[in-house]
Amino acid sequence: MILHDFPLAPNPRRVRMFLAEKRIMVPRVQVDIRDGAQFAEGFRRRNPWSTVPVLELDDGCCIAESVAICRYFEERHPEPSLFGRDAREKARIEMWNRRAELDGYVPLADAVRNRLARFADRAVAGLPSGFPQIPAVAVRGLERYRLFLERLDRRLAERPFLAGERFSIADITAFVTVEFANRIDERIPEGHRHLARWYAAVAARPSAAA
Amino acid sequence: MILHDFPLAPNPRRVRMFLAEKRIMVPRVQVDIRDGAQFAEGFRRRNPWSTVPVLELDDGCCIAESVAICRYFEERHPEPSLFGRDAREKARIEMWNRRAELDGYVPLADAVRNRLARFADRAVAGLPSGFPQIPAVAVRGLERYRLFLERLDRRLAERPFLAGERFSIADITAFVTVEFANRIDERIPEGHRHLARWYAAVAARPSAAA
Repeated sequence: MILHDFPLAPNPRRVRMFLAEKRIMVPRVQVDIRDGAQFAEGFRRRNPWSTVPVLELDDGCCIAESVAICRYFEERHPEPSLFGRDAREKARIEMWNRRAELDGYVPLADAVRNRLARFADRAVAGLPSGFPQIPAVAVRGLERYRLFLERLDRRLAERPFLAGERFSIADITAFVTVEFANRIDERIPEGHRHLARWYAAVAARPSAAA
Repeated sequence: MILHDFPLAPNPRRVRMFLAEKRIMVPRVQVDIRDGAQFAEGFRRRNPWSTVPVLELDDGCCIAESVAICRYFEERHPEPSLFGRDAREKARIEMWNRRAELDGYVPLADAVRNRLARFADRAVAGLPSGFPQIPAVAVRGLERYRLFLERLDRRLAERPFLAGERFSIADITAFVTVEFANRIDERIPEGHRHLARWYAAVAARPSAAA
């Protein structure tokens, strides 16, 4: 088994944090997406969608998509559970992981990809050149991301973690998103004290260094 | 238990198809999102993110987000499985459901919301007025959606369904997306014969009428 990884990209980091929480060691190979290695023939045989991370199993079967890889390991190593234990907890974690992804990560990634010079002409992840940046998307993405943080702060006033009393994959998704925002110098706003408390608690976990 | 539903919106339809595949009956109440009922106080107490569908359990606990609701029912009624049975199948279905959602549904929804007159000034789902349409996003969304269909056609040349030999939630996500594209008169292009075969097969399932 080998994990196709890249240290600077947010989605592989979600998997590394997840594995660290479960204390699972997986050999890794680096795919330098700054150099376009994700578009090379060898990698595209593993993932035609040209994104990292990819988990390659011993028989050559490849699983792409961060959450899909995490789910594979959750099934193989259920404890500590990061996707939930019963129907209600699983549903609640799925709900919060989706909110963190669709209303946090996706708009923030839009802001990053449509703003940083290095993504000029490739503003869509997994697609090569020919996709110019749209400045209005960077503005809208940031606007939506800030709204997400407000909602998160309200949620974290009620509960220690996104999905409730226990740390879950939803916290990993949200944490990696907040850290990704550093790329465009976007920090947690003053006054979001519940969010700041949660952020400090997650950053103090050993998995945050993964 | 009650499902907060709306017949014309794509995400509630994902849940209705899922329930129909499992032959589960759930009482429903309609939330008319054309009239802004999702922003009313009563609904926002159930889902502060103002989206449908929402599943309200008997003790008042509310689960928002289509896939989270589906997962709740998968856990309570495992057969027929639509999320997969073992680690590998679960991971593969999660991968394809994510591709269908993130590379199919999200760009297509961007195209719809940023183009149809009825979404003027509210181009982001779940957010009220103050979000004007960005025409370049409609163009980019459609471009990405067409690329998604190309990739889907290649995948369906290898396998009957997105995730393999069996129908899964990934097929529901992709099917509802393809039907949603009718809103902007976007059809399966000529020549995508594997995609067309799959579409006809899914459309013929009784759940497609749900």
